[in-house]
Amino acid sequence: MAAEKWVYMVTAQTPTNIAVIKYWGKRDEVRILPVNDSISVTLDPDHLCTVTTVAVSPAFDRDRMWLNGKTKKHSCEKSVIHLVTESVSYILLIENLEISLSGSRYQNCLREIRSRGGDVEDREKGVKIEKKDWERLNLHIASHNNFPTAAGLASSAAGFACLVFSLAKLMNVEEDPSQLSAIARQGSGSACRSLFGGFVKWKMGSKDDGSDSVAVQLADEKHWDDLVIIIAVVSSRQKETSSTSGMRESVETSLLLQHRAKEVVPKRIVQMEEAIKNRDFASFTQLSCTDSNQFHAVCLDTSPPIFYMNDTSHRIISLVEKWNRSEGTPQVAYTFDAGPNAVLIARNRKVAVQLLQGLLYYFPPKSDTDMKSYVVGDNSILKEAGLDGENSVENLQPPPEIKDNIGTQDQKGEVSYFICTRPGRGPVVLPDQTQALLDPETGLPK
Amino acid sequence: MAAEKWVYMVTAQTPTNIAVIKYWGKRDEVRILPVNDSISVTLDPDHLCTVTTVAVSPAFDRDRMWLNGKTKKHSCEKSVIHLVTESVSYILLIENLEISLSGSRYQNCLREIRSRGGDVEDREKGVKIEKKDWERLNLHIASHNNFPTAAGLASSAAGFACLVFSLAKLMNVEEDPSQLSAIARQGSGSACRSLFGGFVKWKMGSKDDGSDSVAVQLADEKHWDDLVIIIAVVSSRQKETSSTSGMRESVETSLLLQHRAKEVVPKRIVQMEEAIKNRDFASFTQLSCTDSNQFHAVCLDTSPPIFYMNDTSHRIISLVEKWNRSEGTPQVAYTFDAGPNAVLIARNRKVAVQLLQGLLYYFPPKSDTDMKSYVVGDNSILKEAGLDGENSVENLQPPPEIKDNIGTQDQKGEVSYFICTRPGRGPVVLPDQTQALLDPETGLPK
Repeated sequence: MAAEKWVYMVTAQTPTNIAVIKYWGKRDEVRILPVNDSISVTLDPDHLCTVTTVAVSPAFDRDRMWLNGKTKKHSCEKSVIHLVTESVSYILLIENLEISLSGSRYQNCLREIRSRGGDVEDREKGVKIEKKDWERLNLHIASHNNFPTAAGLASSAAGFACLVFSLAKLMNVEEDPSQLSAIARQGSGSACRSLFGGFVKWKMGSKDDGSDSVAVQLADEKHWDDLVIIIAVVSSRQKETSSTSGMRESVETSLLLQHRAKEVVPKRIVQMEEAIKNRDFASFTQLSCTDSNQFHAVCLDTSPPIFYMNDTSHRIISLVEKWNRSEGTPQVAYTFDAGPNAVLIARNRKVAVQLLQGLLYYFPPKSDTDMKSYVVGDNSILKEAGLDGENSVENLQPPPEIKDNIGTQDQKGEVSYFICTRPGRGPVVLPDQTQALLDPETGLPK
Repeated sequence: MAAEKWVYMVTAQTPTNIAVIKYWGKRDEVRILPVNDSISVTLDPDHLCTVTTVAVSPAFDRDRMWLNGKTKKHSCEKSVIHLVTESVSYILLIENLEISLSGSRYQNCLREIRSRGGDVEDREKGVKIEKKDWERLNLHIASHNNFPTAAGLASSAAGFACLVFSLAKLMNVEEDPSQLSAIARQGSGSACRSLFGGFVKWKMGSKDDGSDSVAVQLADEKHWDDLVIIIAVVSSRQKETSSTSGMRESVETSLLLQHRAKEVVPKRIVQMEEAIKNRDFASFTQLSCTDSNQFHAVCLDTSPPIFYMNDTSHRIISLVEKWNRSEGTPQVAYTFDAGPNAVLIARNRKVAVQLLQGLLYYFPPKSDTDMKSYVVGDNSILKEAGLDGENSVENLQPPPEIKDNIGTQDQKGEVSYFICTRPGRGPVVLPDQTQALLDPETGLPK
């Protein structure tokens, strides 16, 4: 086999996800086992996803990986993408960047998935791999996010999920998505939740080896398809604490974290499952917002304190809280991960249109910004909001019910841009070879 | 007696205080009984205090009170003082403003102190009041803060403490300061701690009537006189939640508050008493900072969340945390009350000079600002810091150990001004009649 020239490859797409009951704190740093269950919504991969091509060939002399920024040009400043995984921070120019696979997170994922590889045969290409071969065959991996990773939108979650999912397909691994999630979890905790679409629970599990710390789907993306998600990517002056080191410091120093994990979250998990099952938006909102705030409270209770939200985040919260109270019933839920970006979940399209109008009134684009690069993703919403014309933002009226107390309309540039999306599907294989990130002949990045 | 014309009066000065183990949450809203003990440092009344004149006369037809802004002109914008008590918010022009005493907080204090009045005789003036007369004699009260109340520096604490202390002197009340503190507490919880100088504990008590919820002095201001306190009065765009309604909402909605009150604070109180007794600055700093952060964490865990600190507050914390870590042992403690202002406690004068230099490097005054109105209180520190000359701020070098990660030196106006002070004495009577705020003949504001 060693003399053969074939390259065998698979390309897959995996979504990112946003937790609505938060994961914050590990009980086992190596296996990445959490101190509590968490629940997330999977975001539509049409707007936010990772695409990964994995290839195997007897010609490859070692495992290699590239981060690929080539396929599309995004609205990111200075053509530079900041990629932040949970363990490493890179600056990625719009070209292929080879990265090291020597870190334990990659090694753990590769070892686990290799040990589960099955027999593979592709007669047309002359490929024949036996189960035992996976240990010695080398891999090439190329990965690409379709969103600016500067957004801090769980790129490592989608990335490790896509790595594990695509390798499982390549290697004909028989494990189901939950079993795969336990492997992805060892790359990045929240990655396990990206193995499913819709609404997903990561069960913390109780076993020391982590085999029961897996994700399960609560409901698919069609179950509650009224929801519209608007993400405000907020500008920040401060360098942020990585979530890996942040949660370690919280576990070590916060006197509130264990109480949250043991007394508060278990009840919220039950309530959130119920809210999702019943499409009960009021409960969903109340739980999402209070759990996001409690996670940030634990960050603040850490020593030294961790601040992920900034004044802009606070203004967005005030806007949503005021609106929800003025309407009597909640219209919009908010949640913030380890950064200042707001993830806003509107109960339906009509509310999302109003929300976008309010957001653009308070956070207008800089004067030279094209609206279609200021609202990305599903930007058909711009037309519905009457925001696709000239001067349309200047003509917006302040939302009457929330006009005071969140500061004035004077800070252009506080929000970098908005992404409009919705709950979405889980990982899929992309059969179209033109979408592959590696050359089918050489196995090197295109 | 009713036909007599005399006016009998007393003028007193009372300090404000800053909690280093925080009071947040009442178990009894009417009697103002807290859910945990708290510990504070009394601030030098030479820099921050309330002066109150109380007068009694058979000629007064009802109880009346004025807030007086006349005596000195302060460095506050547009000659307007925002006065925020725990229950009411006023805008006070620089003149006397009569305020209502009908609120239950005033009524409770007046009733309690009247019931303890003793016999008073001043032969020179022809004054003779018997114990029983206090119930029917009317009072005039004039009160003044020597600091811009916009600062949000516990003006209600100093105010109610001064009201109760001055009335106790006027009425020849025999109660000791701890017993008086239980009366002041019914005006504003933290007021009870302003009955003493130095370091003060408010014992939460256990009785339903609140009689054992009193302040006691842990050490006087001479016990630890190395400490220097610099307050950064931070500009804010947001209207703030009053501490009264904020703590009520926290008690009702935060799932972390009770855990803090029952499990965390009792241990910290013991440790803080020990740290103060031993002048152990490292422990004092660790406890002050973590307790301030935990109080703000509980605010964030409230629904809707309460944000008292802003990005400037966060930047100041980052600056102090970085400096403390780079020095190996803590040099500066920070604590934040229900607002964005930083109270920074330096271990000694030398450290305070360095701290001020660092603060002025990152938070320079606007170009047209006189340094003596940008650093007030004990501003002799400006000379020691070499900041009393022309262009002295422009020539400051960045502190080497904290140069990155707290944002750049580009936001003039983030800090309104600094106040330099130190731990100070408790309430005193001001015997000099020229300092009285009421006219000795008419009993009306001067």
